[in-house]
Amino acid sequence: MLKVYGDIQSGNCYKVKLLLSFLDIEHEWLHVNILDGESQTHEFLKKNPNGKIPTVEFTDGRFLSESNAILTYFAEDTNYSSSDKFGRAKIAQWLFFEQYSHEPCIAVARFIQFYLGMPIERKAEYEALQISGNKALALINDQLSLTPYLVGAQISIADIALYAYTHVAHQGGFELALYPSIEAWCLRIKSSPGYIPMA
Amino acid sequence: MLKVYGDIQSGNCYKVKLLLSFLDIEHEWLHVNILDGESQTHEFLKKNPNGKIPTVEFTDGRFLSESNAILTYFAEDTNYSSSDKFGRAKIAQWLFFEQYSHEPCIAVARFIQFYLGMPIERKAEYEALQISGNKALALINDQLSLTPYLVGAQISIADIALYAYTHVAHQGGFELALYPSIEAWCLRIKSSPGYIPMA
Repeated sequence: MLKVYGDIQSGNCYKVKLLLSFLDIEHEWLHVNILDGESQTHEFLKKNPNGKIPTVEFTDGRFLSESNAILTYFAEDTNYSSSDKFGRAKIAQWLFFEQYSHEPCIAVARFIQFYLGMPIERKAEYEALQISGNKALALINDQLSLTPYLVGAQISIADIALYAYTHVAHQGGFELALYPSIEAWCLRIKSSPGYIPMA
Repeated sequence: MLKVYGDIQSGNCYKVKLLLSFLDIEHEWLHVNILDGESQTHEFLKKNPNGKIPTVEFTDGRFLSESNAILTYFAEDTNYSSSDKFGRAKIAQWLFFEQYSHEPCIAVARFIQFYLGMPIERKAEYEALQISGNKALALINDQLSLTPYLVGAQISIADIALYAYTHVAHQGGFELALYPSIEAWCLRIKSSPGYIPMA
């Protein structure tokens, strides 16, 4: 059976769990505790030399990592991708935006506040992340004021990827009530058939 | 004609220029100077609300941004992608690795040293980037000691994306002589038909 190495509290892992649930793909979830160093063991580095989760192991023993590459793989030729070349490109645009401009702000602010309990030596970094994180949220909100989902009228892996850390952004100090189109979009995703919560 | 807004000295822009050259796709290159704020003007933000280059404008007036989404778009169904689903997923894995674990280290160290002239207030950040950047380079080198290109025997957009900042990593203080498989790979890419240098 397909194996997923991850931590459901990590947005990067949760997005994979959410897509697999939407697609009803059977899998075994193997918990990896990164704070205990479980992603840096010799055994784990054979699965993903970059020492990160999520990592999936196919039944033939091959591995795939990088959450958004995993989403792209499983979404191919399903309703969570697009049948149109430009549509697929716009989905990819949002996926790269997520890993470059969104996750490094929202997820790291959440890590500092929610996991580490806001240590004083990371307060300046946390404050800077509020600015860049709110810029990312504003860009998402602007798009969602035009279309119900990030790439048009249908949910795609762009929404799943950006939903993962956005819907728990309050745990990183972000105020989602400032972004009404994001709040409405979160409700749409939560009511989608097959939805599962983060924890 | 296809328009590309970019700065050829930026690896993220150069990777697009390099793929378009390999594919012999005619385009107009419009220089954008980010240090002069040209990516933050009202006019430019209508093209890409995130205010980043590269951004491409298709002849029908539609826009696409995020360098690796642009690469994915143009590579689709060409020799720079893969005809195999798992191959495409591994290419995507390297593209996301590039934007999350490589570019934020190598490109930012290069920016601090090469563009900003190593200001003292960014010295600590620069030193930290040497550690994470060398980790990224080691991962690339390990893969290239097994296969001539990042995903097997053929050049793909994974190579183009990672070549862009890797081949100028010395401008960010990285010593490529420590990574012989990377050096050999750089020579293979430089000798590919259609290759154009960064500047």
